[in-house]
Amino acid sequence: MNNRILTKYENNPVMCPAMMPKTVLYTFNPGAIEYNGETILVMDVTTLDDVHRLWIARSKDGYHFTPDPEPVPWPEPDPTHIETCTYDPRITKIDDEFYLLYASDLNQNNVRIGIVKTKDFISYERVSTASELGNRNGCLFPEKIDGLFCRFDRPFGNELEPCSIWVSYSPDLVFWGKSRPLMYKGKPWIDGFKMGAGAVPIKTDKGWLEIYHTVSQTCNGFIYRLKACLLDLKDPSEVIGYTRDFLLWPEYDYEMKGRVMNVVFTCNALPQQDGSLRIYYGAADTNIGLATGNISEIISACI
Amino acid sequence: MNNRILTKYENNPVMCPAMMPKTVLYTFNPGAIEYNGETILVMDVTTLDDVHRLWIARSKDGYHFTPDPEPVPWPEPDPTHIETCTYDPRITKIDDEFYLLYASDLNQNNVRIGIVKTKDFISYERVSTASELGNRNGCLFPEKIDGLFCRFDRPFGNELEPCSIWVSYSPDLVFWGKSRPLMYKGKPWIDGFKMGAGAVPIKTDKGWLEIYHTVSQTCNGFIYRLKACLLDLKDPSEVIGYTRDFLLWPEYDYEMKGRVMNVVFTCNALPQQDGSLRIYYGAADTNIGLATGNISEIISACI
Repeated sequence: MNNRILTKYENNPVMCPAMMPKTVLYTFNPGAIEYNGETILVMDVTTLDDVHRLWIARSKDGYHFTPDPEPVPWPEPDPTHIETCTYDPRITKIDDEFYLLYASDLNQNNVRIGIVKTKDFISYERVSTASELGNRNGCLFPEKIDGLFCRFDRPFGNELEPCSIWVSYSPDLVFWGKSRPLMYKGKPWIDGFKMGAGAVPIKTDKGWLEIYHTVSQTCNGFIYRLKACLLDLKDPSEVIGYTRDFLLWPEYDYEMKGRVMNVVFTCNALPQQDGSLRIYYGAADTNIGLATGNISEIISACI
Repeated sequence: MNNRILTKYENNPVMCPAMMPKTVLYTFNPGAIEYNGETILVMDVTTLDDVHRLWIARSKDGYHFTPDPEPVPWPEPDPTHIETCTYDPRITKIDDEFYLLYASDLNQNNVRIGIVKTKDFISYERVSTASELGNRNGCLFPEKIDGLFCRFDRPFGNELEPCSIWVSYSPDLVFWGKSRPLMYKGKPWIDGFKMGAGAVPIKTDKGWLEIYHTVSQTCNGFIYRLKACLLDLKDPSEVIGYTRDFLLWPEYDYEMKGRVMNVVFTCNALPQQDGSLRIYYGAADTNIGLATGNISEIISACI
């Protein structure tokens, strides 16, 4: 019997370093969005100087991607936080603008959440450095909640017992507050060492559907796998359902071997007209895969 | 030759556990303010259940203190952050209200900055839980900077290389942003392992005067000592001077022996009409001392 809710695309990976126009080390953890008849992946690409840069690949059908010749023309850094490394963008469309919440890193352990926006994936404008020190996996909801912007984030404040998915609010994307933990260790939905938001939440009539990553610790390192949860539409700090089983896990070479072994990790999942969901995911911090499933089946698995 | 800029009160400590109306473990790290003809200390008091609670002692002359019979009647906790422990309050007067920024702790490593206000040190009102996870040493400026509330804070985001004094801004004391590091390791003013804001900044014609703590690491633990710096009046994220020498250090029994050995630590320093400064300070996390100095001499030592 097949217990799988998600099906991996048979020609995965849809993107890998060999497909890039220049020699690079890794291509992974893309933000994904549909714009102007194309599927756009904003990928983490590690160049030979070991810096993660954002780089776009575009596709007409969502399966066959062509990378741009150069990385994204990123705006000048925030003068109070001169980032040296950018990765894991989540793309949220609000009105006619696309907001990228990404990890803005100075060096290991100094990461904060940056926000950059674009209207056309050609030119980009910096909005803010939007967190305190030690926060990432920022993920903006596609609409305001009670008049406030709302995001997931993942503060590092507790190294000994890592909390996980938090919710924070903002009137303007610059000043943030009212932070509270959503899912954390000790609650039934965490089975591993840590967890963090994954895809930008998807509004459904049953609640906000969130695909997230959960991290198990083994004697030889971490394993990153995906699960899903369902949050109250009016108050997304309330968990109303979650999957007991993993939705997606590393099992093939392209997911198991690379910069970080044994990782699947998503930033965006794209609902389709036919009720299916396309989850673009980083694999082993090296490749990019596509998995598809039926949204109503994922929701059923949460309840 | 006497190189001391500060003089310790000869009858120190001004408060210790034996002076309390009930048996307690420790009295330390007070916020201090003058109100209604009295000097008020809002002390950390550790009761026999090992919980830090805030407790007031009052004095007519600033030297002889009488503790209240009971701890401060603290407001109900923020339902999204049920604090179990409160300590290190800095008191800032703005208009006719006193704002207490304090460490709001769930348990070790889960601390955030809480804000509570009072008009009379009798009844208290909760304002916000005002930081992400892992932040303390919050210290609010007594006036807005460019139309925004301004505070020091001390995010824990980097355990390996602890940053130290940061500056953050807020339109309303609820939502915070524009955070940036002020003083951190690698800059000339840090000589130790970590540092954090101390007293609420004092406005002088030479700049904002800040008394802060710097922490050295020895093979047998930390030593907390005080220094001072001077910040630009219009942009307090600019350091314009700092002391090379320590201003205050543990040397007497009441500063060296206690819950945490070898600590002097301040939350408020009170300027007097005659140009002197009264620094109330926690000693060894067990007692409270008073040191006085001349404001202009401290400023000269910064330049």
